[in-house]
Amino acid sequence: MSGNTFGKLFSVTTFGESHGPAIGCVIDGCPPGLPLSEADIQPELDRRKPGTSRHVTQRQESDTVEILSGVYEGVTTGTPIALLIRNEDQRSKDYGNIADTFRPGHADYTYWHKYGVRDPRGGGRSSARLTAPVVGAAAIAKKWLHQQYGTVFKGCMSQLGEIAVPFQDWSHVPDNPFFAATGDAAVIERMEAYMDELRKAGDSIGARIDVVAQNIPVGLGQPIYDKLDADIAYAMMGINAVKGVEIGAGFKSVEQKGTEHGDPLTPQGFVGNNAGGVLGGLSTGQDITVSIAIKPTSSIRTPRPSIDKAGNPVMVETFGRHDPCVGIRATPIAEAMLALVLIDHALMHRAQCGDVKVSTPDIAL
Amino acid sequence: MSGNTFGKLFSVTTFGESHGPAIGCVIDGCPPGLPLSEADIQPELDRRKPGTSRHVTQRQESDTVEILSGVYEGVTTGTPIALLIRNEDQRSKDYGNIADTFRPGHADYTYWHKYGVRDPRGGGRSSARLTAPVVGAAAIAKKWLHQQYGTVFKGCMSQLGEIAVPFQDWSHVPDNPFFAATGDAAVIERMEAYMDELRKAGDSIGARIDVVAQNIPVGLGQPIYDKLDADIAYAMMGINAVKGVEIGAGFKSVEQKGTEHGDPLTPQGFVGNNAGGVLGGLSTGQDITVSIAIKPTSSIRTPRPSIDKAGNPVMVETFGRHDPCVGIRATPIAEAMLALVLIDHALMHRAQCGDVKVSTPDIAL
Amino acid sequence: MSGNTFGKLFSVTTFGESHGPAIGCVIDGCPPGLPLSEADIQPELDRRKPGTSRHVTQRQESDTVEILSGVYEGVTTGTPIALLIRNEDQRSKDYGNIADTFRPGHADYTYWHKYGVRDPRGGGRSSARLTAPVVGAAAIAKKWLHQQYGTVFKGCMSQLGEIAVPFQDWSHVPDNPFFAATGDAAVIERMEAYMDELRKAGDSIGARIDVVAQNIPVGLGQPIYDKLDADIAYAMMGINAVKGVEIGAGFKSVEQKGTEHGDPLTPQGFVGNNAGGVLGGLSTGQDITVSIAIKPTSSIRTPRPSIDKAGNPVMVETFGRHDPCVGIRATPIAEAMLALVLIDHALMHRAQCGDVKVSTPDIAL
Amino acid sequence: MSGNTFGKLFSVTTFGESHGPAIGCVIDGCPPGLPLSEADIQPELDRRKPGTSRHVTQRQESDTVEILSGVYEGVTTGTPIALLIRNEDQRSKDYGNIADTFRPGHADYTYWHKYGVRDPRGGGRSSARLTAPVVGAAAIAKKWLHQQYGTVFKGCMSQLGEIAVPFQDWSHVPDNPFFAATGDAAVIERMEAYMDELRKAGDSIGARIDVVAQNIPVGLGQPIYDKLDADIAYAMMGINAVKGVEIGAGFKSVEQKGTEHGDPLTPQGFVGNNAGGVLGGLSTGQDITVSIAIKPTSSIRTPRPSIDKAGNPVMVETFGRHDPCVGIRATPIAEAMLALVLIDHALMHRAQCGDVKVSTPDIAL
Repeated sequence: MSGNTFGKLFSVTTFGESHGPAIGCVIDGCPPGLPLSEADIQPELDRRKPGTSRHVTQRQESDTVEILSGVYEGVTTGTPIALLIRNEDQRSKDYGNIADTFRPGHADYTYWHKYGVRDPRGGGRSSARLTAPVVGAAAIAKKWLHQQYGTVFKGCMSQLGEIAVPFQDWSHVPDNPFFAATGDAAVIERMEAYMDELRKAGDSIGARIDVVAQNIPVGLGQPIYDKLDADIAYAMMGINAVKGVEIGAGFKSVEQKGTEHGDPLTPQGFVGNNAGGVLGGLSTGQDITVSIAIKPTSSIRTPRPSIDKAGNPVMVETFGRHDPCVGIRATPIAEAMLALVLIDHALMHRAQCGDVKVSTPDIAL
Repeated sequence: MSGNTFGKLFSVTTFGESHGPAIGCVIDGCPPGLPLSEADIQPELDRRKPGTSRHVTQRQESDTVEILSGVYEGVTTGTPIALLIRNEDQRSKDYGNIADTFRPGHADYTYWHKYGVRDPRGGGRSSARLTAPVVGAAAIAKKWLHQQYGTVFKGCMSQLGEIAVPFQDWSHVPDNPFFAATGDAAVIERMEAYMDELRKAGDSIGARIDVVAQNIPVGLGQPIYDKLDADIAYAMMGINAVKGVEIGAGFKSVEQKGTEHGDPLTPQGFVGNNAGGVLGGLSTGQDITVSIAIKPTSSIRTPRPSIDKAGNPVMVETFGRHDPCVGIRATPIAEAMLALVLIDHALMHRAQCGDVKVSTPDIAL
Repeated sequence: MSGNTFGKLFSVTTFGESHGPAIGCVIDGCPPGLPLSEADIQPELDRRKPGTSRHVTQRQESDTVEILSGVYEGVTTGTPIALLIRNEDQRSKDYGNIADTFRPGHADYTYWHKYGVRDPRGGGRSSARLTAPVVGAAAIAKKWLHQQYGTVFKGCMSQLGEIAVPFQDWSHVPDNPFFAATGDAAVIERMEAYMDELRKAGDSIGARIDVVAQNIPVGLGQPIYDKLDADIAYAMMGINAVKGVEIGAGFKSVEQKGTEHGDPLTPQGFVGNNAGGVLGGLSTGQDITVSIAIKPTSSIRTPRPSIDKAGNPVMVETFGRHDPCVGIRATPIAEAMLALVLIDHALMHRAQCGDVKVSTPDIAL
Repeated sequence: MSGNTFGKLFSVTTFGESHGPAIGCVIDGCPPGLPLSEADIQPELDRRKPGTSRHVTQRQESDTVEILSGVYEGVTTGTPIALLIRNEDQRSKDYGNIADTFRPGHADYTYWHKYGVRDPRGGGRSSARLTAPVVGAAAIAKKWLHQQYGTVFKGCMSQLGEIAVPFQDWSHVPDNPFFAATGDAAVIERMEAYMDELRKAGDSIGARIDVVAQNIPVGLGQPIYDKLDADIAYAMMGINAVKGVEIGAGFKSVEQKGTEHGDPLTPQGFVGNNAGGVLGGLSTGQDITVSIAIKPTSSIRTPRPSIDKAGNPVMVETFGRHDPCVGIRATPIAEAMLALVLIDHALMHRAQCGDVKVSTPDIAL
């Protein structure tokens, strides 16, 4: 397919631009019989929506989702599910000054070279706003995976710029504006002060996000090419601003010895999880652990050198309302992508090997 | 498709197991009119083949490739190109003892759970031997990309366990057994001693590999999902033993500020390449720079705790002939995957936007 | 992909049910730079919309299309184009009586068996109403093909039940309610009387539709599997109620000899078109000629024996507002499907072989 | 994918040319655990191989198949199965005279225009010889479908030129060289005489083939686009020389009324099968009935007007060894294509709806 569809069997095809009339997606392949309404989807959208703290963009979008098809009397019918989200709070005039210049770090230059035309309002198609339909689609995936296997997804910010966020417990994540898994008020305060300072300086910062999927059947994935980890890497690197992806031990593997890295098996299960829940492209039944690097927001107030369409040098400063750390809202997005990968592989597994038999007791679960 | 095909428009479908009669692939979508013979492919296969130094597996495979179709009178015809490589030096008995046990760090456990049956000889389908057909296919991709755009691919090992390998010049890569881009004999000697020690200890080690593609048209890639960087991450994470992928600044982005990360544009081109040659999922025309983490070889002589099929505890030690650092032979493989991603996107770009017009002078080229 | 997307490079993914809130589609892969507005699409939708004569369903749908994305300042941007059509005139109560029974000739029985749940209102997803988004998408395809190659599409009803409609001239097609290519008032009157009688009898009838594409580049198609004619057959047989597809001489080929069937070539072009414009799966540059058989409408007032969900015998009569000959409105739909096949192959050809060079003079054009 | 792969979940990717070193295919997605050896595949290949009677080409090919991968200890492992068939009896010199001319009815002209290069030996990639790997792959599909659902495939020639072959019983099919389902010696003699006359005249003739699949679960297929009947049409029209496809009542539907066409349901099952086993794109559980039109062989000895590459008029007569009626060997090929469509939909159904529950008693089975 042309490139704009995620997943082979649970396929999500999105549409829309940041400042167009609407954004949304069509989900093809959702199994029939799943109870579903907007109330299942809206909470996930609310987790990523803008305007929830002073550390993210102040754009006000309710991101209210409407299900246009595929659900009848509160149950999925097996036919395509279309989700529609109307855009509400565009201030396209904020972008008027960038129609003819290329913002450093943005897709302006590359889109213009590729297509010869681009919608500059709010980044058009390249806006992180386009992750909203994905999060909506993933809410459905999450519900199905939980119903089938008890799968749950968790995510947190583990580093904000130079500030490492020590992991305490997942339960803290909703209690602070950073998706930090810590109840240590001092850490949160330090993050808030750090962000305030950046905002004042007209600058932005990168972040590291960790996501985990728990309760996964053994054997999801393919031996070659559509390996579970390969598809996770594709999904994660495809999120706006992501520059690096690790699974399990990740880059720490470079300095590990074989005696250290390979997780031993015991009758009670694996000892350790350097594999991050994937061996040979297939899930081991352990937690799937993923870590991603998110670059600093490219839209900053500080003026930067660039060129215009004619190739002349210009200084660009970006107004509009932006997240000074796009990583902050990335946690629910990364969870969403992981859920989409997993449901796709769960359906593919079912095609190839039949219904998953969750053996009891299974050493790896 | 079922999972075993790489690429949408330059599609590589592989087959084979480590100890079966043969391995190979079918390449669909190669443009017609490209001069091609086995002599174009064999040198790339020779770069990755085993047995070339004492630091890699001593399995002796000539990896002689035969073109079975798609070429007529020395020119590609536009029809599928099949490559066949016969397996030669299997010692399947080396693996007899592992048919009923699961080697830590290997795909044994996951394959057995998924399929209920597996070919244990040499890792079967999960063997790194299956990268040979890919390298063969990529030799064709490289030739076409070079013919069209002058694209070239380069790769080196930048870290071996705890030994960082300082980059001097690409020209040194073929002159040492590690694909190290250094002419510093002391560094090479240190690497050799390090490997000798590991081999003696029956252990293995991880590595970091860097690859670069140069002379790329601007605009290859898709805005959402099939982003160029997403597809690169998929390709790289799909290589055996890879646990992490970075593009451009990679994980360094986490600590970068926006004023530091976003590469400014000037009439003479970009200043800096934190982007790694990709913005908004599309190529910028700069070098595409990728870095990957490769875990230590899972097959080691040191006995390790595991279980057998019945769930009983066993100790597993792996005989056979293995690479103590699979990272050593990974460089040509990583280059190959990058080439396959790029030709696919080049063809997709042609479909959507017509022939690439390489403008002169283009600031980004 | 899961099954609900038409086309590989110009991909149309539809959504919606007959009586849901809306129907629509996402078009991925439309080349950038094509001038486009709703005014380009609406006329094609109007050609197929219901309620235009007494011989088709009296359901009143304006079928007003809204472009939600992919167009900026009147020009396609290369990003996905979403089309939305709100449903307006549903009378779902007409279908209340069929929720628990299976209408003969309809998808009720098969959907229920497959999914265990179905939306019975107006046939749900199986309604011919779902051809509207396709016709909308094809309007874009037609515009691009015409701009690139001068391609035009024509279609007519060549048989209505037992009434053969002699072909006179394409210009007559818009002048009668049957898409008949005849200016013979007697034929039209006979057709009208025939339809009136059927309607009175509570019965329905089949039809044959012919479609043609003119001004096609030579060489579109693939040698094996995605042959141009194979994809046309897929597209046509996928239209609601189609039971047969012919290309060129079609079933007449069965009785033809080789000396009669094979169209000779001359310096001035082909003599004859038994091939229907396709040889070896590739376009010849001649007119592409396709003929399809459409079964009689399954929804009829005459009571028919069937069963209910519990397997008990029942009599089913279908109320609601139906086309007594679904073939009548099938002409623009068949043209649309042909256009979608051709643009997909045109883009695929461009990927594989570069821009089409329309040679002058080309004997086949 | 680029076009050369059949099926989404049971994917067959072929390679080879008529006179190259070998032909074959890679089958991806075959479920694990199926007992399989060459002995399961060879008999199907033998049914279609040349040289079995005086009415087909005298080319002598053993068509001996070799399984290169995907089977371990006599059982499929779930990994790709590669089939290899070496070409043996090429007489490429027979084709020397056609390298520069275009044979009427053949792909010569279109290939040359598309690719600018072609392998003229034996038709190259466009040779019907390329159906051999497909028949091999389908032997595996048939075995799996039979094991799972008891599915069986049957096929016969129902018309040879002007000679209709009345159906008596499937059991007669192997007993005559025409795949005729009749034990009437007079009919067979008439067919033999007819063929002898054609051969003497240097001419060829068309045919009609009927194929049936029995014991199919209810509900295979997709509502829109990948309808079961649409995919069957694609598969059948893609067979060399096919110009028409019918399902169920086919073109007879044009003259049928709704009261006649729609098959009533009773507690004991459907009455009649005008649907051909498909309603709304999904299988009904009845026999799937397909009929195809095959054009006369284009390679005939009788000289025909054509042009050469330079556009000059020439007379072309085709030597070499050809089937005077390609329809004769088409029966096993059509069965094969039907089997490939059905296994693909069976796996897709399993992905979407889980394992098929074959209810007992099911009225439709």
